[in-house]
Amino acid sequence: MKILLIGATGLLGKAVMKELEEKNEIIRAARHNADVEVDITKPDSIKRMFDQIGKVDAVISATGHAHFGPLEEITPELNETTIESKLKGQVNLVLLGMDYVNDGGSFTLTTGVIMDEPIYQGASSAMANGAVKAFAKSAAAEAPRGIRINTVSPTVFQESSEELRAFFPGFEPVPLNKVALTFRKSVEGVQTGQSYEIY
Amino acid sequence: MKILLIGATGLLGKAVMKELEEKNEIIRAARHNADVEVDITKPDSIKRMFDQIGKVDAVISATGHAHFGPLEEITPELNETTIESKLKGQVNLVLLGMDYVNDGGSFTLTTGVIMDEPIYQGASSAMANGAVKAFAKSAAAEAPRGIRINTVSPTVFQESSEELRAFFPGFEPVPLNKVALTFRKSVEGVQTGQSYEIY
Repeated sequence: MKILLIGATGLLGKAVMKELEEKNEIIRAARHNADVEVDITKPDSIKRMFDQIGKVDAVISATGHAHFGPLEEITPELNETTIESKLKGQVNLVLLGMDYVNDGGSFTLTTGVIMDEPIYQGASSAMANGAVKAFAKSAAAEAPRGIRINTVSPTVFQESSEELRAFFPGFEPVPLNKVALTFRKSVEGVQTGQSYEIY
Repeated sequence: MKILLIGATGLLGKAVMKELEEKNEIIRAARHNADVEVDITKPDSIKRMFDQIGKVDAVISATGHAHFGPLEEITPELNETTIESKLKGQVNLVLLGMDYVNDGGSFTLTTGVIMDEPIYQGASSAMANGAVKAFAKSAAAEAPRGIRINTVSPTVFQESSEELRAFFPGFEPVPLNKVALTFRKSVEGVQTGQSYEIY
């Protein structure tokens, strides 16, 4: 299977790469230091990426920046940075990439636990997660040519920094390889419109 | 109770008005023909509205435009119209309006059934619904001074046009007065972080 992995250089991307690279051809995409460079906040950059790589069997997004900060300090402008990246960046991968996915192929996007279980400073990120989840579920019901669309919603990783894990008190961290396995389920399985929750 | 009702001139807004006007002072906001004019797609217009009316006990959003169209025809640009209005418009009411809500007051925003049960041409609207639901849940957990934040997610109305109801095959339409009653539950009750689903 030919798989486009966006966010390949990140913590999650590397774990997904490790899980899938043995049996598949992976094209690694990231802002820098990858097979193809892409800035998902720019539709033109997404279009250029797809033009460059051509048809694939699966598109995985393991990326998306979100603003974290106390609710009372979130301005529309700070919230916009989340909308541009984690929200629109991922949604636009589907809107602009559909024609580049082979029949029966798939999109797998990334959300996260805080849409279901709020954490301090997480409102902007939760917003993006909820948007991507609902969009994917609805888009999956209309996708042409047997194309499937799922989302993976992990909790905090065991491998996340101590600083980050401190924002998730009482949340049981999951190992990255378990999260990566779920991406395999989405890519190689048959389900669509799912939100795979790894909590 | 002093209540700011945004979208007061619409089908839903009028029903909410009818439910709440007997016991409360309602300030009707809309783009035109209301007590105060507001365009929720413009943060400056939202700020101006709040400056104009001062402190209130409750903010209700019964508004938000969304793009409807087949998935394969949704461009990033068309999707942007949903993001600007139904998504950011409602989120920004909370971000910019928090200081204008009295202690123990509330925000009640509007989402919709299609984030949970997709309909044809609904992916962009579903995205906004999911975003607003998750944002409200997370923001509610951080809101200061006992301020509560809920969302109301109705299915199609009995009073909706026949043309609109045709997009919801097999969905049981609900009467607007039942939906309006739920806004009362949010405004006059004690719950926060809820997504009230009227399906």
